[in-house]
Amino acid sequence: MIEQREAETDSSEDDFQMSRQDLDAINRAIDEADGPGLDALLEPMHAADIADLIEQLTAQRRRQFLSLYSGEIDGDILTEIDESVRDEVIEQLPRDVLADAVREMDSDDVVDLIEDMEEPEQQAILAALDESDRVAVEQSLTYPEYSAGRLMQSEVVTAPEHWTVGEAIDFLRQEDWLPDQFYHVILVDPRRHPVGYVTLGKLLASRRHILLREITEDSFRTISARQDEGDVAHAFNKYHLISAPVVDEHDRLVGVITIDDAMAVLDEEHEEDILRLAGVGDDSSISDSVIETARQRVPWLAANIGTAMISASVISLFESAIAKLVALAVLMPIVASMGGNAGTQTLTVAVRGLATKSLTRANTMRIVRREMLVGVLNGLIFGLIMGAVTYLWFHDLKLSLVIGMAMIVNLFVAALGGILVPLGLVKAGADPALASGTFVTTVTDVVGFFTFLGLASVVLL
Amino acid sequence: MIEQREAETDSSEDDFQMSRQDLDAINRAIDEADGPGLDALLEPMHAADIADLIEQLTAQRRRQFLSLYSGEIDGDILTEIDESVRDEVIEQLPRDVLADAVREMDSDDVVDLIEDMEEPEQQAILAALDESDRVAVEQSLTYPEYSAGRLMQSEVVTAPEHWTVGEAIDFLRQEDWLPDQFYHVILVDPRRHPVGYVTLGKLLASRRHILLREITEDSFRTISARQDEGDVAHAFNKYHLISAPVVDEHDRLVGVITIDDAMAVLDEEHEEDILRLAGVGDDSSISDSVIETARQRVPWLAANIGTAMISASVISLFESAIAKLVALAVLMPIVASMGGNAGTQTLTVAVRGLATKSLTRANTMRIVRREMLVGVLNGLIFGLIMGAVTYLWFHDLKLSLVIGMAMIVNLFVAALGGILVPLGLVKAGADPALASGTFVTTVTDVVGFFTFLGLASVVLL
Repeated sequence: MIEQREAETDSSEDDFQMSRQDLDAINRAIDEADGPGLDALLEPMHAADIADLIEQLTAQRRRQFLSLYSGEIDGDILTEIDESVRDEVIEQLPRDVLADAVREMDSDDVVDLIEDMEEPEQQAILAALDESDRVAVEQSLTYPEYSAGRLMQSEVVTAPEHWTVGEAIDFLRQEDWLPDQFYHVILVDPRRHPVGYVTLGKLLASRRHILLREITEDSFRTISARQDEGDVAHAFNKYHLISAPVVDEHDRLVGVITIDDAMAVLDEEHEEDILRLAGVGDDSSISDSVIETARQRVPWLAANIGTAMISASVISLFESAIAKLVALAVLMPIVASMGGNAGTQTLTVAVRGLATKSLTRANTMRIVRREMLVGVLNGLIFGLIMGAVTYLWFHDLKLSLVIGMAMIVNLFVAALGGILVPLGLVKAGADPALASGTFVTTVTDVVGFFTFLGLASVVLL
Repeated sequence: MIEQREAETDSSEDDFQMSRQDLDAINRAIDEADGPGLDALLEPMHAADIADLIEQLTAQRRRQFLSLYSGEIDGDILTEIDESVRDEVIEQLPRDVLADAVREMDSDDVVDLIEDMEEPEQQAILAALDESDRVAVEQSLTYPEYSAGRLMQSEVVTAPEHWTVGEAIDFLRQEDWLPDQFYHVILVDPRRHPVGYVTLGKLLASRRHILLREITEDSFRTISARQDEGDVAHAFNKYHLISAPVVDEHDRLVGVITIDDAMAVLDEEHEEDILRLAGVGDDSSISDSVIETARQRVPWLAANIGTAMISASVISLFESAIAKLVALAVLMPIVASMGGNAGTQTLTVAVRGLATKSLTRANTMRIVRREMLVGVLNGLIFGLIMGAVTYLWFHDLKLSLVIGMAMIVNLFVAALGGILVPLGLVKAGADPALASGTFVTTVTDVVGFFTFLGLASVVLL
């Protein structure tokens, strides 16, 4: 299905990647230490593409590149560079270039830049900011990491609720501090509680004497500054928000979150989910070094060697049975592997359902029941198949009965574990994507080996 | 780290889920067939929440619910309902309610609604539309599935490039067909080629005599109507686009895509990736029935039983070795399982890197080299550990040498397979998320069993 899709739509023509020619030219300019040539090549490029380029260079070439180009790094490029290489880049930037870059940035981007820095480095950057920007950034940093308060920008366009369209337009014409991009005017009461919002489209299309409160949007939603950023991204996607006002504990307006930032968070959350499910550190990045990458993967592999040893000790309980009938050793990995796969299927659906909030109070019991029935059904199907295959292979009816039974039990246990383990982890306050995989495959390995070898010992020997 | 995060940010206070009380009240209203009560309960709810509720009911309760509420289903709710239950809902809607709902919808939402319908049903819905809307929808349907042309809406606000701010504002005040939400005015030349865009914020903040072309944004990007929707979503996220003009093969403006639709596509693409990696059909949904769910999972389990049988036949080559030394049967799943896990780690990083386009021409060779070195490094670490553990367990130095060697070989092969298999699948035009998992774990199982048992046969027996 996907092949068809790629063939029909036109993904090659402009896939938002740099052409090989451009890349070769840039590499040549770096090799020849040709600063002006490099500037000319990068001049037409979007900041996000320059940032990508910087991320994709090796550490050594990145240093060469920056020694030629660091004077040109501005706020837009710095904002786009991934955290994993940003510190490296900042270290090589001349102080005045860094200060200029930071002054250009929106407050939310400055927060993102400095929140993981050491105190003295933070202070150095804060010192480069104007008084009002510095206060805004410091205010943001008082909210917990990964909260709406860290994600918001403090540059908000507001108007009193009693204004007319004409008053609002005159006000906007006078102000020169307006954010680069804004889409709504937020109406506030005298105590700065947001009470509604007007889209710029409505403002433009309405006559000057109309009151703002007559053209506010129906659906209005404020976000608490302490709300988790993942929930915020989910709300943007679900309710098609373009921007949303952020309020403090007294319901006073403190900032605004825009959809492009929410979209970036959604993308990061997905990245974390997929990497955690596979047991890769969720701060891993394509630009990490060999040592860093190996280090991130060790904990999961260490956990896996531990659980594999548990499975092995289950097998060792039945050493005498295996010695008598070596076919057991040949067949036992099939039972375990099918359980692991079926468990992973259920688990992934559950983790994804929890992440997208489609697995809710309203349907949890139904989904648990469904997965158990699916486990039984697929257990019957593959128990039959495996029983038949075993009979054809080893001509031993009892052995095929044993493997069929073990398969049914293990696929049922896989379904049960696949849905209950993530639900249990959420109840316990842990991230279901992080730990479910090990739990579930350990269960299916242990149950798989134990039922198959145990039944075989009883029935066959 | 994630526990800390959940504890610090405030995810429970407002997690955008319905409260248990509301849910109970709604269930009671359905049980008592209390139509007016149900209307009153749902009246304050957002269309997206009502759609979620409908998805989460069982098929039977959904019918009961619709018999009470179908008159209230409008375009907003219908747009939000997931494809998996939408047909069911549409069947139960009175014709006039459906016609009203469809007339309210933007052209892109109508396209999404009818693109998978049979011809006669499509025609019935198209007939309910105004002439101009119908033409727009039919135009969209001429573009391939999953293309920008299907995603765009045809309601676009444009202005000639020679207009002033005043002319543009007067024009917007006169028109009454403007889209609900729009953020930019697209400037077009006389042949309707888009040449730039002006944000509504700039339009509002500028004096009336200023020319539009003086206040256009620097970064301007058009999207080809045949572009794959996944690439479009990626471009929105990368370049922080809020809306982007869509052009046909003659570079003429045919529509506009807004970021909320791009965000929804990004979310769907992630869902597909994560489900495909786990071997779950990518059209699976939380509202599917038992039979439907079992059916979706069978192909992958069937593939897995096939590959497990290949591994089993590798083991059967060494039956006599196992019969002589049963410890081999105990230890062999550890070697295979570590390979499978290490392979999955590398594979997931590669698939994710391909999806986010951070694995590019510029760094492919470097990443392949990195993964191979990581494989060797982790192979040495876990080869040593496993050798030591085996010595403590079985007091057999040769056996521990054999398992250590097999572990090193298998973790290296896992790394190699984990990166080369997805790259190869992309080269061959297939989706790397769909098929990599089976390939890679088959390789690591076969290599794991073969090296361990093979070395053991040579060294020990």
